[in-house]
Amino acid sequence: MSPVRPVAILGGTGPAGMGLGLRWARAGGTIIIGSRDAHRAQETAAKIRERAGEHANVSGMENSEACAAADILVLTVPFESQAGLLKQLKPAITEGSILVDATVPLAASVGGRASRTLGVWQGSAAQQAAELVPKGVSVVAAFHNVSAELLGGDEPLDCDVIVCSDDADAGQLVRELATRIPGVRAVDGGKLENSRIVEQITALLIGLNIRHKGHAGIRITGLPPDAYR
Amino acid sequence: MSPVRPVAILGGTGPAGMGLGLRWARAGGTIIIGSRDAHRAQETAAKIRERAGEHANVSGMENSEACAAADILVLTVPFESQAGLLKQLKPAITEGSILVDATVPLAASVGGRASRTLGVWQGSAAQQAAELVPKGVSVVAAFHNVSAELLGGDEPLDCDVIVCSDDADAGQLVRELATRIPGVRAVDGGKLENSRIVEQITALLIGLNIRHKGHAGIRITGLPPDAYR
Repeated sequence: MSPVRPVAILGGTGPAGMGLGLRWARAGGTIIIGSRDAHRAQETAAKIRERAGEHANVSGMENSEACAAADILVLTVPFESQAGLLKQLKPAITEGSILVDATVPLAASVGGRASRTLGVWQGSAAQQAAELVPKGVSVVAAFHNVSAELLGGDEPLDCDVIVCSDDADAGQLVRELATRIPGVRAVDGGKLENSRIVEQITALLIGLNIRHKGHAGIRITGLPPDAYR
Repeated sequence: MSPVRPVAILGGTGPAGMGLGLRWARAGGTIIIGSRDAHRAQETAAKIRERAGEHANVSGMENSEACAAADILVLTVPFESQAGLLKQLKPAITEGSILVDATVPLAASVGGRASRTLGVWQGSAAQQAAELVPKGVSVVAAFHNVSAELLGGDEPLDCDVIVCSDDADAGQLVRELATRIPGVRAVDGGKLENSRIVEQITALLIGLNIRHKGHAGIRITGLPPDAYR
């Protein structure tokens, strides 16, 4: 990973954000953990540094400061926080930024089951995000299907990351980020609208986890080797 | 497979139905290919016998005769034919039968893209099927994500079959059928409502096939060994 192009993980104090931060810090990235609370962000950054090694470049900031300090922004918040946070951060997100959305509209957001989803008017949580970011910001949907618990561990993952975006260059950049996580292959999932399906898969995997007591992920089979990158 | 409990594949002259028939015939099953046209059904049955070997037990019948002759019914028709066929076959389906639905509500059904889906009022094509079958018939959703082209070949598949049903015994029987296809692992996907997600995955895989020129399938990772059966 480029040490000079920081990646800000907004809502990065949760398990998914921490796990991504840990993996990317180990890969040599410069990581900014964002949180509503700068102090909590710094605490999480310190925990990641402790696990990733003394050379790890991880800091913590309040979310809008994190936005201003990076142009690759990864959103790892529960669905119920997504729209409100994006509205709040809109002035802080700089033109040309890439917003990587990992949000899944689980019914748990409104007190329902985590194995069911809510209908989102725009089609998907990522499409909702695309409506809320400033002009000139590309949205890329990714990282929905990786287990937060396994991300936060030390073993390679056994999971592919399907990346959807209407901006081909931004999609490619995020696929490269994905492959920095040991064991992960990135697959170009096409347009942002396809995030509708990729988000749903998470609910299916959560159901499988509940039923079978595992940490389910998916692999895409049957594609030529150059499809995975 | 039980040679004395026939499996009828309704709309079995298409690639998916033929592929399933071929694989199950090779596994020693008694297969009835159903079609609107008994003659076409018999032709397809003959093709399968030719490929599966002289001991293969495969016959062809008009769909309603196939229903009457079996209590495991596998529906492999395009979405636009599903409801009409089920209404027509209702009197022929015997109580206690299991209807295995592999239908995917692709937008191609109404002239749209095969990488997009239609919303189904009941939630999924399989849930629509559940509304249309006679009382006492269990619906099991399965086989959506296996490539029809690979099913029709001779190599083991590299794909899991996620099986969803509200009838646990019927689900188990269909998981056993799935594992008779070389390379396939069956995963209990829970209630029939979860077919909403499994059906959608097919549209995603079709998009991947178009984009990357492959025959995509999925594997579920991260579950304990006893979850696959």
